[in-house]
Amino acid sequence: MSAPRLRGVLAPVLTPFKPDLEPDALRLIAHCRWLLTQNAGLALFGTNSEAASLSTGERMGLLDAVLEAGLPAARMLPGTGACALPDALALTRQAVRSGAAGVLVLPPFFYKGVSEDGLFAYYAELIERVADARLRVYLYHIPQVSGIPITLALIARLLGRYPAAVAGVKDSSGDWQNTRALLERFSAQGFDVFPASESMLLRALPLGAAGCISATANLNPAAIDALYRGWSGARGAELQAAADALRQLFQSPSMVAALKQALADYSGDPDWAIVRPPLTALDAAARQTLLAALRRLQFAMPGLEPTEAGA
Amino acid sequence: MSAPRLRGVLAPVLTPFKPDLEPDALRLIAHCRWLLTQNAGLALFGTNSEAASLSTGERMGLLDAVLEAGLPAARMLPGTGACALPDALALTRQAVRSGAAGVLVLPPFFYKGVSEDGLFAYYAELIERVADARLRVYLYHIPQVSGIPITLALIARLLGRYPAAVAGVKDSSGDWQNTRALLERFSAQGFDVFPASESMLLRALPLGAAGCISATANLNPAAIDALYRGWSGARGAELQAAADALRQLFQSPSMVAALKQALADYSGDPDWAIVRPPLTALDAAARQTLLAALRRLQFAMPGLEPTEAGA
Repeated sequence: MSAPRLRGVLAPVLTPFKPDLEPDALRLIAHCRWLLTQNAGLALFGTNSEAASLSTGERMGLLDAVLEAGLPAARMLPGTGACALPDALALTRQAVRSGAAGVLVLPPFFYKGVSEDGLFAYYAELIERVADARLRVYLYHIPQVSGIPITLALIARLLGRYPAAVAGVKDSSGDWQNTRALLERFSAQGFDVFPASESMLLRALPLGAAGCISATANLNPAAIDALYRGWSGARGAELQAAADALRQLFQSPSMVAALKQALADYSGDPDWAIVRPPLTALDAAARQTLLAALRRLQFAMPGLEPTEAGA
Repeated sequence: MSAPRLRGVLAPVLTPFKPDLEPDALRLIAHCRWLLTQNAGLALFGTNSEAASLSTGERMGLLDAVLEAGLPAARMLPGTGACALPDALALTRQAVRSGAAGVLVLPPFFYKGVSEDGLFAYYAELIERVADARLRVYLYHIPQVSGIPITLALIARLLGRYPAAVAGVKDSSGDWQNTRALLERFSAQGFDVFPASESMLLRALPLGAAGCISATANLNPAAIDALYRGWSGARGAELQAAADALRQLFQSPSMVAALKQALADYSGDPDWAIVRPPLTALDAAARQTLLAALRRLQFAMPGLEPTEAGA
């Protein structure tokens, strides 16, 4: 991928569904457009995108739709990981062909207790079969969900063998000691570390973090971008505190459901609240609690146009 | 599915790969034929089949191949679970159309800590969208791998709503207290409980277990079938001890790799040892230890024909 390296704030883009649970490409495109106006990159098909609840064909169809709408591939980091190597291969090849800036690749997450050799072999097969100098793989460390950690030892092995293709890591562990260890060990050699939460930016950016890939960037991208750009200035701590206060509202009971409910209410499009099973939408009480808390923070989504109902 | 209810011993059929990691339908058909001669049913696409490492299209292609080879659908219990509902739907519809005796359905296993409501909604969408009176769903409880337990409360809710479609459970937890609780609570009402290990048969059959779905039935089906049929006779304890002794050899370091290595050595077809990443094949030392232990038990696979290399 000849695009410049990704930097700054990316949103794992929420995936809209219709009442029959089909994905809604038109509303996805509209949300992506708004995110770009707020200077957020597009980490399509992440955990908070419910990517695991989409088939490989649905993911490929949605990526095609976003590209056909003219959105810039150089701002995209689609998630292309899967339990089955052929699925990861098909998704990764499509992303590379499309000119995406990189791909975010979960480890295969069904079998537990697999060896480092097995994980190395999985990523090696992927990289060698894609066989494209444009490939930029970002490893996805989210052990509390996947059950499969991306260890520093695995990263070192992969970087040693594939220094051009292995571009970085998203650290969703929430464990600052792990994020710091990644930054201290790898960031000086051009391996880009993205914490998954803006709450780490003030600590991570001085150590060389490339930005963050954060679910709340779906709603609050401008404030997180301001923190990314302004952390070293006089208002750094204040910007961090404001971003943290908003993020806190979405931590429970389900971040995806809470983000989608807020987007439904702020966009005036109730279908944004729809999630696919096994996730469940917020109940009425949780919705009211969330909205009241957002109002107390005087939260706004500038420039958000009410979207028309999907095709 | 108008086939009679499944009973007895089923093997989660090992999936053969070629050296380029493509699935090998011809060797799969040959192995299924041998299992049927040993009175084992065909639980294709289970955990020990590396089903999670196969794409949905690969699973559908392999099921078509075994059906086209003339193998009896009434002896098949394909695994059709997936993280994404559309994948589970496509796989389940194919199995039902084909006349399979049932489908073994993992819960969606990426998101953790999901609610009972969310899991109920997932299975409910599956059952209602398949909308076929022949559907027989066997729930798949393997929490140490999936991270998502199938609780007794969830089973009771699903049975209450879909008494005809919800046919049973495979309990791979290895937790006898859970298997016993399932048997005591549900087996009298026609809900079939299959422990995943033959080592529970002597305890589970008196409580009404329907049989077992066990990985070692890939190698040792006749002895496990003898235990299933003879548990209440004079030789019950002896048959149990013999089955346990063989199973013990495959517990470590990787059951799939050990089973495949043994099948490679006993069939004379070294390609049977191939696994897909993230699993890894046995190393030479583990292979020798396993083979020596099998020889000490005078293990044999009667009637196994050396298979021709795949197409």
